[in-house]
Amino acid sequence: MKRHWFTICLTASFALAAFTHYSGMFSATVQFIVACIAIIFVAGFLGKATESVAHYAGQRLGGFLNATFGNAAELIIAIFLVKDGLFDIVKASITGSIIGNLLLVLGLSLLVGGLKYKEQRFNVKLASHNGSLMLLGVIALFVPAAFAKSLSMSSTMKLSLSVAVILIIAYLLWLFFSMVTHKNELSDEAIEHGEPEWPKSRSILFLFLATAMVAVVSEWLVGTLEVFTHQYGLSELFVGAFLIAIVGNAAEHSAAIMLARKNKIGAAVEIAVGSSLQIALFVAPVLVLVSLLFGRTMNIVFTTFELIAIGVAAIIAKSISQDGQTNWYEGVLLLVVYCILGIAFFLV
Amino acid sequence: MKRHWFTICLTASFALAAFTHYSGMFSATVQFIVACIAIIFVAGFLGKATESVAHYAGQRLGGFLNATFGNAAELIIAIFLVKDGLFDIVKASITGSIIGNLLLVLGLSLLVGGLKYKEQRFNVKLASHNGSLMLLGVIALFVPAAFAKSLSMSSTMKLSLSVAVILIIAYLLWLFFSMVTHKNELSDEAIEHGEPEWPKSRSILFLFLATAMVAVVSEWLVGTLEVFTHQYGLSELFVGAFLIAIVGNAAEHSAAIMLARKNKIGAAVEIAVGSSLQIALFVAPVLVLVSLLFGRTMNIVFTTFELIAIGVAAIIAKSISQDGQTNWYEGVLLLVVYCILGIAFFLV
Amino acid sequence: MKRHWFTICLTASFALAAFTHYSGMFSATVQFIVACIAIIFVAGFLGKATESVAHYAGQRLGGFLNATFGNAAELIIAIFLVKDGLFDIVKASITGSIIGNLLLVLGLSLLVGGLKYKEQRFNVKLASHNGSLMLLGVIALFVPAAFAKSLSMSSTMKLSLSVAVILIIAYLLWLFFSMVTHKNELSDEAIEHGEPEWPKSRSILFLFLATAMVAVVSEWLVGTLEVFTHQYGLSELFVGAFLIAIVGNAAEHSAAIMLARKNKIGAAVEIAVGSSLQIALFVAPVLVLVSLLFGRTMNIVFTTFELIAIGVAAIIAKSISQDGQTNWYEGVLLLVVYCILGIAFFLV
Repeated sequence: MKRHWFTICLTASFALAAFTHYSGMFSATVQFIVACIAIIFVAGFLGKATESVAHYAGQRLGGFLNATFGNAAELIIAIFLVKDGLFDIVKASITGSIIGNLLLVLGLSLLVGGLKYKEQRFNVKLASHNGSLMLLGVIALFVPAAFAKSLSMSSTMKLSLSVAVILIIAYLLWLFFSMVTHKNELSDEAIEHGEPEWPKSRSILFLFLATAMVAVVSEWLVGTLEVFTHQYGLSELFVGAFLIAIVGNAAEHSAAIMLARKNKIGAAVEIAVGSSLQIALFVAPVLVLVSLLFGRTMNIVFTTFELIAIGVAAIIAKSISQDGQTNWYEGVLLLVVYCILGIAFFLV
Repeated sequence: MKRHWFTICLTASFALAAFTHYSGMFSATVQFIVACIAIIFVAGFLGKATESVAHYAGQRLGGFLNATFGNAAELIIAIFLVKDGLFDIVKASITGSIIGNLLLVLGLSLLVGGLKYKEQRFNVKLASHNGSLMLLGVIALFVPAAFAKSLSMSSTMKLSLSVAVILIIAYLLWLFFSMVTHKNELSDEAIEHGEPEWPKSRSILFLFLATAMVAVVSEWLVGTLEVFTHQYGLSELFVGAFLIAIVGNAAEHSAAIMLARKNKIGAAVEIAVGSSLQIALFVAPVLVLVSLLFGRTMNIVFTTFELIAIGVAAIIAKSISQDGQTNWYEGVLLLVVYCILGIAFFLV
Repeated sequence: MKRHWFTICLTASFALAAFTHYSGMFSATVQFIVACIAIIFVAGFLGKATESVAHYAGQRLGGFLNATFGNAAELIIAIFLVKDGLFDIVKASITGSIIGNLLLVLGLSLLVGGLKYKEQRFNVKLASHNGSLMLLGVIALFVPAAFAKSLSMSSTMKLSLSVAVILIIAYLLWLFFSMVTHKNELSDEAIEHGEPEWPKSRSILFLFLATAMVAVVSEWLVGTLEVFTHQYGLSELFVGAFLIAIVGNAAEHSAAIMLARKNKIGAAVEIAVGSSLQIALFVAPVLVLVSLLFGRTMNIVFTTFELIAIGVAAIIAKSISQDGQTNWYEGVLLLVVYCILGIAFFLV
C-alpha cells in the first residue's frame, strides 16, 4: 500500500518536472519548485534501490555501496555544476551538505529522538573516530585555503590535486578499516533492512534507473538556479549552502529522523555524520579530479565563510557526540548553530 | 559575630563611597578605589540575599533566581555603560567576566582545592554539557565578528539582534533542560545553604535593596573610569577586561575558592563555568536588546583580541574540565593562560 | 655484536663528516648528506648515554635527565642558528620538531604498532594532561603572534620574554607534578632499560662526549644549509621544518617505533608527545632567553604558516590520543595530515 503511493508520487513528480522543464510555459520559480519536489522522491527511490542491492551484495560490499551511492544525488548535481564551471556554487553546496548533515539532520534526529527517550546511546568508539575524521576533513579544506594566498595559481592547483588524492586514499583506507579490519569494534545497532523490496535483478536495474533519474532531475534543477537566484536577490552562497543542500539531503533527513524515533540513534548518527564525512573526504576531492576531465580545473580552496561554517559545524558536532550519549538539548544546540549560520549566510 | 562584621563593612564602605563621590573633594583615583571596595561588599550582600530568597523559593525556582541574580552586578554595571554609549568598554568587561571566571576563578579553585586534595571529581555529564554550551557561546560571538566585515551596518545589526534572540532562547531552554527535564542527571553535590540568614519577607526586601545598592555603586564606579584610565595610561581594554572583571567577580571568587577547599569542586566549577556561560549566553545578548531601549544600538561584534581571549579560555577550560577530574596542576595551566592574556592585553 | 656495529658506524660517519667538512674538497650537498648521516648516529649515541646515566641516577632524576637531554640535539642545533641570527630557520625547525613528533613519529608508531596489534592502550589520564599541555603550547605561541601586529617592537619583545619565562615555569611545575606529586597516577608501562650499556663513570663521560659531538656535527650541518637550500630552490621554511626536523628526530623515530612494535605504545606516545611538548614549552622559550646572551634578541612570534602547522598537529593528535586507545588507522590519519602540511610547505 505504502509502496504504491511512493511509486505514484515518484512517477507523477518526475513527469511533472519533465513537463514544466520542456514545455517552456512555466517560470523558473515554478520549474525550481517542481524539480525540488521531484528530487526528493527520486533521491528516496535511489536510497531504496541502494538498500535493496546492498541486501543481496552482503554486508561488506553492501556497506560500500551504501557509502558510494548514498550521496549520489549530491555528487551528480555537483558534477553538472562543475561541467558548467559554476565552481562557487559547487563549493557552496558541498559546504551546505556538510553543515546540513552535521547540524540540521543530526540536530533534528537528536531533538526528535530526545523528546521520546530521555537519553539515547551509541558506540563511543565510532563517535571518537568520526570526530577525528571530521577534523581531518576540516584540516584538509583549511590548509589549502590558508596557504593559497601565498601560492601561484599553478601551485594552488598542485596543492589541490595532491590534497584531493590524499583524501581519497584516506577515505578508502577508512572504508577498509571500518568494514574489514575493525568491523566489529565499530558496529552498532545495524540499520535493519528487513525483507528487500525487490528481487535481485530488478534491484540492480532500479539502481541504474534511479541514478539516471537523479542525474536528469539534477540537470533541470541546476538550470533554473541562476534565474531563480537573480529574481529573489538571494546570494549563490545562500542558495547553494542552504536551499540546495536541504533539498539534496531530503532522503537522509527522513531516514535519520525515523531511526531516531525508533531509538536507533546510532544508525541515525551514522547517516548524518557518515554522510558529511563522505562529502568532505570523498565527494569534494572527486569533484576536483572530475573537473580535470572537463578541461577547467576546480581548486579545493573554499571561501573564509564556507570554512568557518564547516569548522564551526565540525567542532560543535564533535563536542556533542564524543560521549556517545545524546538528549534533546544537544539537538537544540546543533539547530541553534545552524540558525546562526543560516542568518549570517542569508545576510552576506 | 561574622555577620555583624559584614554588616559594618558593607555600611561603612557604601557610606564612604557615597561620600567620596558626592563631596567632590577626592580625585578620580580615590573614588575608583573606594567604589571598588564598596562593590565587593555590595556584591557579597546581593549574593547572600539571592541565596536566602532561593532557600524559600524551592530548589527549581531558587536555581533560576541564582542564575539570574548571580551576575546582577555585572549586568547592572554594563547597563550603565551601555546607557553612556561606552560599547567598547562593555564588550571588554563581558570578555573580562568570561575569561575571569573560566581562567582566574576556576584556576584558583582547582589550585587551592588541589593543594589540599590530590584529586577532586565532579559530574562528567555536566562538564560535557558545559563544554558544548561554552562552544556555542564562542561560536555565537565569533560568527558575527567574522561576517561583519562583509556586511553593511544595518545587516550587522540584524545579525546581532537575531543572534541575541537565538542565544536567549537557547539559554532559557538550557535552564529548562538542566532544571526540569534532566535535573537529576546533572546534579552534583549541591551548594549547601544551611539555615537562611534572614526570614522570608526580609530576604525579599534585602534582594531588592542589594540590587539597588549594586546599581548605585556601579554608576559611581563607571563615572570614575574614563578619568582613571587616562591618568594611568591604561587601555580601556585592559581596565574593562581585567580590573573591572576582577572586582565585579569578587563574590564568585571567594565563594568558589571556599567550596573548593571543602572538596565541593563540583559546586565551585558550577559557579565559575556557569557564571561565564550566563554572561556569554544571556547577559551579552540582553545588553544588545537593552541598548535598543536607549536609542543607540550596540552590535554583538567583538574585537579580534576579545574573541581570541574568549576562544582560548573556552578551549583550555573545556580541555581541562572534560574528564571530570581536577588537580592542582590543571589550576596552574588555567592561571598561566590568564597571565599570558593579561600581559598581552596590558601591552596592547 | 650489535653494539660493535653501532660504534663502528658512529666513528666512521663522524670521521667522514669531519673530513668532508674540513678538506674543502666537497660540495655543500655532499657535506649536507654526510652530516645528516653522522647526526643520526651521534643522536643515537646521546640517547644511549642519557638512558645509561638515567639508569644510575634513579627513576625521578633519570626522568628529568631524559627530559632535558632528550631534545639536546635539537636545542644545540638551534643555539648555533640563534648565534648566527638565523631566527626564521630556528622557528621553522622548532615547528618541524613539534609537528614531526606529533604527526610523523606518533603516526608511524601507531601505524606500525597497529599493524601488529589490533588495539593498543595507554594511560588515559596522561593522554588528557598531554592534550591540555599541548593546547597551552599552541596558545602560548598563538597569542603573541596574534597581538604582535598591534604592538611596537619593544612591546613584542616584552611579551615574548614574559611568555618565555611563564612557559618555563609552567614546564618546571609540570615536571614537579608528573614526577613528584602525581607520579603514580600518570605512570604507564615504564620504558624498560634492562642492563645499562656502560658502568656509571663511563656513562657520565659518554654523556658529555656525545653532547659535544652533537654540537660539533650540528655546526657543520648548519654551515651547509644556506648553500644547500639555494642550490635546490627549497625554501628555508621547508628545509627547517621538514628536512632538519626529520634528521634531528631520528633517535626518537627509531625508539618510538621499536617500542610500538613491542606493544609498549604508552612509552612510544610518551616519547613522541613528550618530546613535542618539551620543544614547545621548554626549548622554544629557552632559545628566546639564550638569544638575549648573543645580543640580538629573538622574539617568540611565529609565522601564520608555522602556527597553522603546529595548531593543526596539536588538534588532530589530541583528538586521536584522548581515548587512550590506538589502532593503525589513527596512525594513517596523523601521517595524512603530515603529508598535507609537507606539500603545502614545499609549495610555499
